[in-house]
Amino acid sequence: MKNHIYKLIEITGTSTISSEDAVVRALKRAHKSIRNLAWFEVKETRGSIAKGKVLHWQVTLKVGFTLEG
Amino acid sequence: MKNHIYKLIEITGTSTISSEDAVVRALKRAHKSIRNLAWFEVKETRGSIAKGKVLHWQVTLKVGFTLEG
Amino acid sequence: MKNHIYKLIEITGTSTISSEDAVVRALKRAHKSIRNLAWFEVKETRGSIAKGKVLHWQVTLKVGFTLEG
Amino acid sequence: MKNHIYKLIEITGTSTISSEDAVVRALKRAHKSIRNLAWFEVKETRGSIAKGKVLHWQVTLKVGFTLEG
Amino acid sequence: MKNHIYKLIEITGTSTISSEDAVVRALKRAHKSIRNLAWFEVKETRGSIAKGKVLHWQVTLKVGFTLEG
Amino acid sequence: MKNHIYKLIEITGTSTISSEDAVVRALKRAHKSIRNLAWFEVKETRGSIAKGKVLHWQVTLKVGFTLEG
Amino acid sequence: MKNHIYKLIEITGTSTISSEDAVVRALKRAHKSIRNLAWFEVKETRGSIAKGKVLHWQVTLKVGFTLEG
Amino acid sequence: MKNHIYKLIEITGTSTISSEDAVVRALKRAHKSIRNLAWFEVKETRGSIAKGKVLHWQVTLKVGFTLEG
Amino acid sequence: MKNHIYKLIEITGTSTISSEDAVVRALKRAHKSIRNLAWFEVKETRGSIAKGKVLHWQVTLKVGFTLEG
Amino acid sequence: MKNHIYKLIEITGTSTISSEDAVVRALKRAHKSIRNLAWFEVKETRGSIAKGKVLHWQVTLKVGFTLEG
Amino acid sequence: MKNHIYKLIEITGTSTISSEDAVVRALKRAHKSIRNLAWFEVKETRGSIAKGKVLHWQVTLKVGFTLEG
Amino acid sequence: MKNHIYKLIEITGTSTISSEDAVVRALKRAHKSIRNLAWFEVKETRGSIAKGKVLHWQVTLKVGFTLEG
Repeated sequence: MKNHIYKLIEITGTSTISSEDAVVRALKRAHKSIRNLAWFEVKETRGSIAKGKVLHWQVTLKVGFTLEG
Repeated sequence: MKNHIYKLIEITGTSTISSEDAVVRALKRAHKSIRNLAWFEVKETRGSIAKGKVLHWQVTLKVGFTLEG
Repeated sequence: MKNHIYKLIEITGTSTISSEDAVVRALKRAHKSIRNLAWFEVKETRGSIAKGKVLHWQVTLKVGFTLEG
Repeated sequence: MKNHIYKLIEITGTSTISSEDAVVRALKRAHKSIRNLAWFEVKETRGSIAKGKVLHWQVTLKVGFTLEG
Repeated sequence: MKNHIYKLIEITGTSTISSEDAVVRALKRAHKSIRNLAWFEVKETRGSIAKGKVLHWQVTLKVGFTLEG
Repeated sequence: MKNHIYKLIEITGTSTISSEDAVVRALKRAHKSIRNLAWFEVKETRGSIAKGKVLHWQVTLKVGFTLEG
Repeated sequence: MKNHIYKLIEITGTSTISSEDAVVRALKRAHKSIRNLAWFEVKETRGSIAKGKVLHWQVTLKVGFTLEG
Repeated sequence: MKNHIYKLIEITGTSTISSEDAVVRALKRAHKSIRNLAWFEVKETRGSIAKGKVLHWQVTLKVGFTLEG
Repeated sequence: MKNHIYKLIEITGTSTISSEDAVVRALKRAHKSIRNLAWFEVKETRGSIAKGKVLHWQVTLKVGFTLEG
Repeated sequence: MKNHIYKLIEITGTSTISSEDAVVRALKRAHKSIRNLAWFEVKETRGSIAKGKVLHWQVTLKVGFTLEG
Repeated sequence: MKNHIYKLIEITGTSTISSEDAVVRALKRAHKSIRNLAWFEVKETRGSIAKGKVLHWQVTLKVGFTLEG
Repeated sequence: MKNHIYKLIEITGTSTISSEDAVVRALKRAHKSIRNLAWFEVKETRGSIAKGKVLHWQVTLKVGFTLEG
């Protein structure tokens, strides 16, 4: 590992299926515009409710990626 | 969206299956007595252990619902 | 319940499958050396990323167990 | 002051005017069903946005009130 | 233990005697209207002062109780 | 609501008039370069002082917006 | 800017008008005895309630000022 | 209650007897130099240990008092 | 004082008598296996409830002790 | 000082030399693409270890910079 | 150690050299007016930036000192 | 990287020289009894003071290491 510099961003993924699917979808979308995603941390897990059931899982991640030289 | 007022309560759901099932069960129970559940936030995920395995997942939620006029 | 004394330790489980599997694996490993695991609390959920996908889920737990008299 | 017992609840007021109006509206609504509101603390100030302007201010309060004997 | 659902409320007990008496009094009052109080957590210990002495201990508790089916 | 992905950024607005004007100005500026601003949360309210009076209100916001497909 | 040393104090302003007026009044009072007030940060916004209306806004500030040589 | 301004200070009381005695002693000492002590909040409870027993209880308080006009 | 290195552990003491007795019992038990306990900090005070009364006080401590060279 | 708007980003600098060198390197890299860096705050100091020695210091900063008109 | 009472204050030291120099300078200045400084804790490390380099390190300390009888 | 399990411990290093030397000394001591130290995080930086100068830097670290199968 060289002396890398990383940038951290926050994104929120949503999913009707599960909280983990919300994470997966958020990373997939971030990967479209940023190539070097390295790690993430779950900051918040929320959701919207309809008729007593989870409508959307909403998971906010902090994601770190390598900054090119 | 009108100028709604919301109330927030805290409930803990438990499940032998998964942390998400604990969320689902907590919301299902709250829905019995409160009609307008709108959103939730996971505050804490704990569990009891027996013989090195998760016995009960215990997930504490903050849940918001609309107060009628 | 008698006047037990408990000790709390922190462990991080990792899994390529899911965050819950990371919890299960961490408890399974701790159970090898400590017999009376009683409860846990999830402190942090992180992960490493490769090509925009979760490579390892990393879940840090605080785990409590009974100290023998 | 006698040895009172207080209960604390959380409510979110919303307003298109200002964050203080959101507080005022939340207390007004709570006062309808609870007579002895005694104090509040602002826990969170959020808002929704439309076309770069604040649509609704959303202020979450913890409110304390005296429990009757 | 079955798959119980719990509700959590916050109450503040006050006492001229001690912080622990404030806890005892808060629980005694809550027990009047709620039968299944199960556990509590101390969230804040404050007090009012008169002539350099503690006038009232004020202890805020989060209290959990079982929700009937 | 579809399965949107959101990005969150932090901005600090300043104003000589009021803390709410600082929020309004920050959102107005952000709206210049980002079209889909959806919600904000106040993270910090500070200010500079001159001769015992508030010179600038400085309000830091976390702002969320929708990421296009 | 030289290598200044600052001291930080905490004060609570109160106002029947608004939370911002409470800030203004707190700074005005502090300025009577301390000349070099430089910045503040809002730490807590609370209030007392009478008949469902805000009686006093209570805003606690951390205030920094330059220590002379 | 008029529009008072309060100052908040932090003090640590110590006692070989109990944590509450540490609070009482801290307030007694503060009262020597400050007349209008109004309220306190317990911020931290620590202690030193000798031979497995508490040697000194150390309780840190935030204490508020009225600033004269 | 030499350049000591300390280790910190977390233990939870329980007591049917008082929160301070829970602290005392936790330290007494820790002293059985660790000789150089030096200080503690109270991290959490909880309890179980039976019939509206405290059944067990549960106090979690962080305890520091000197590591031998 | 005019009514500036600032943006805040998070970056992690790494260094084999010291935590301060990690800060310096992070700012140097950020300066390449952002001209108006104004202030920073240290959010986290971590490191990787090899054979009981610090391999890389990893310091995460929040950095603020002026947004052009 | 007798049953001392301590007061805690907050000061911010600044330095163009290093964060540790900022600590040293803050303590040196505080020592001018307070004789019994006993311990400190670093609360915040910030800095101002000019041309991508640290201009001033700004370190905020909580400092405890013994109150005379 | 396999599906490792990590344990986290807390240690406090002390040094008369610098905060970084306190980190280095803490890790050096931990390495004597634990072979697979992998990473650390600085949790707290404190110090003792004598005559207005830092006597001992006291840095508390959370340290993670690999648990053997």
